[in-house]
Amino acid sequence: MSNQLYVIKIGGNIIDDEKKLSSFLLAFAFIEEKKILVHGGGKLATQLANKLGIEQKMIDGRRITDAETLKIVTMVYAGYINKNIVAQLQSHGCNAIGLCGGDGNLILSHKRKNSPLGDGDIDYGFAGDVDSVNTTLLKNLLDQNMSVVIAPITHNKEGLLLNTNADTIAQEIAQAMGKLYEVHLIYSFEKTGVLLNANDDSTVIPSITPLSYKELKEKQVIFAGMIPKLDNAFTALNKGVKRVIIGKAEELKQLLEGKSGTSIILQQTSFEEKT
Amino acid sequence: MSNQLYVIKIGGNIIDDEKKLSSFLLAFAFIEEKKILVHGGGKLATQLANKLGIEQKMIDGRRITDAETLKIVTMVYAGYINKNIVAQLQSHGCNAIGLCGGDGNLILSHKRKNSPLGDGDIDYGFAGDVDSVNTTLLKNLLDQNMSVVIAPITHNKEGLLLNTNADTIAQEIAQAMGKLYEVHLIYSFEKTGVLLNANDDSTVIPSITPLSYKELKEKQVIFAGMIPKLDNAFTALNKGVKRVIIGKAEELKQLLEGKSGTSIILQQTSFEEKT
Repeated sequence: MSNQLYVIKIGGNIIDDEKKLSSFLLAFAFIEEKKILVHGGGKLATQLANKLGIEQKMIDGRRITDAETLKIVTMVYAGYINKNIVAQLQSHGCNAIGLCGGDGNLILSHKRKNSPLGDGDIDYGFAGDVDSVNTTLLKNLLDQNMSVVIAPITHNKEGLLLNTNADTIAQEIAQAMGKLYEVHLIYSFEKTGVLLNANDDSTVIPSITPLSYKELKEKQVIFAGMIPKLDNAFTALNKGVKRVIIGKAEELKQLLEGKSGTSIILQQTSFEEKT
Repeated sequence: MSNQLYVIKIGGNIIDDEKKLSSFLLAFAFIEEKKILVHGGGKLATQLANKLGIEQKMIDGRRITDAETLKIVTMVYAGYINKNIVAQLQSHGCNAIGLCGGDGNLILSHKRKNSPLGDGDIDYGFAGDVDSVNTTLLKNLLDQNMSVVIAPITHNKEGLLLNTNADTIAQEIAQAMGKLYEVHLIYSFEKTGVLLNANDDSTVIPSITPLSYKELKEKQVIFAGMIPKLDNAFTALNKGVKRVIIGKAEELKQLLEGKSGTSIILQQTSFEEKT
């Protein structure tokens, strides 16, 4: 038990829902093993941008982080959301410490290069792709019985903060920490797991292997937003993460116990008891 | 040299000035001894509140922190300002880590009680008065060669974030760390020090003792905003801080060397070389 580490990503829809967030944080606080929480941003950043009359540019469903948007996500993610999560966890006796990727050089990234699309280039603006994770700092904080709460803002060590996808941050941290711990990576969100029927929470697929993933994609059971999540999950497993679970934030305890959600696994046999 | 700690407060006017802030941070990055930076908020929070149409209530020159204002200061102080300072310091090779008082239970406070004034009570809203500083956490981070950057937001361990005066935070941290280090407390701002003539930067008072402070107050040379700063300074000295200096942010190096600014001292003899 002593060398287990939970890296838990919590999705935007939960962050937007005060009650769900609160019950999730209570469950998180009571995890006895070492733990890291990576949070997304939810709708707050968009709402604030709208109120301030800052137009949000989207290309292919991706938000383009211009200078004004970077200011807003830094305030909302690394300020408001991060510190409120920390304060709530502290109230449950969980010694949380909230950081962004700049703090203690936790997550070093580089500004994403323009990407060619049709006639021109897409300028992603202040989007950061991860280069490295400071595992020494994380281990030191965990060893002091702190739980680390991470906002999806990174830096390039040249003075720039950068907006980075929270799923990717969770994956990169899980992989990097896999050298020091048996890492369990949990993607928690509003659904009960990967579903056969996206509108029916009772159709959770209990486990997905590379083979069944291929089939599910071919049959178009899995699509859109779930594909990068699952791609990330398999990458993480291939890079030394012990297990990846996708499931409902409000069922965190059951997720960790393997009683809920979808387990992403490399081989069928390793999770026989579940299938 | 090894057991010296600099606790440096930087004032709002410097934070509002990109160039001055940048040159201050460069000087801060190059301090070889252990160091903590406490920053205020500047005008950004007020500007954001104005843009969002949130009215700022002031009583006796103090901002009243209602729920909406608390959101804003949390975003601006603990998010935008704190993380941008960290990113800049990191670009200068200074391993900065940005925290607010909730992080790792760094600064525990309680919500200020209503204060009777004339006919009724003043409700200060979400203002926090400091109860304790987590010196173990600070020492651990400093021992890892990190420089800690602190936003003036504290927490009550019951889930509430609270707005706390940055001067007070600097003082409380200096006092608490005085048990572990020889602490130098520096209040840096836009003026060259405590001035005989508030409009003439060349009239710096090189040192102030309790006796001369009494005289300066009687002659009304010292007034308004400087009085709480000096009261804080003497309290800090009486509680074990080694020295307190008030002076210009852009002269940080000279301030630390005692070549600039006003030294607040308990006895004339201890700083003879300056007078």
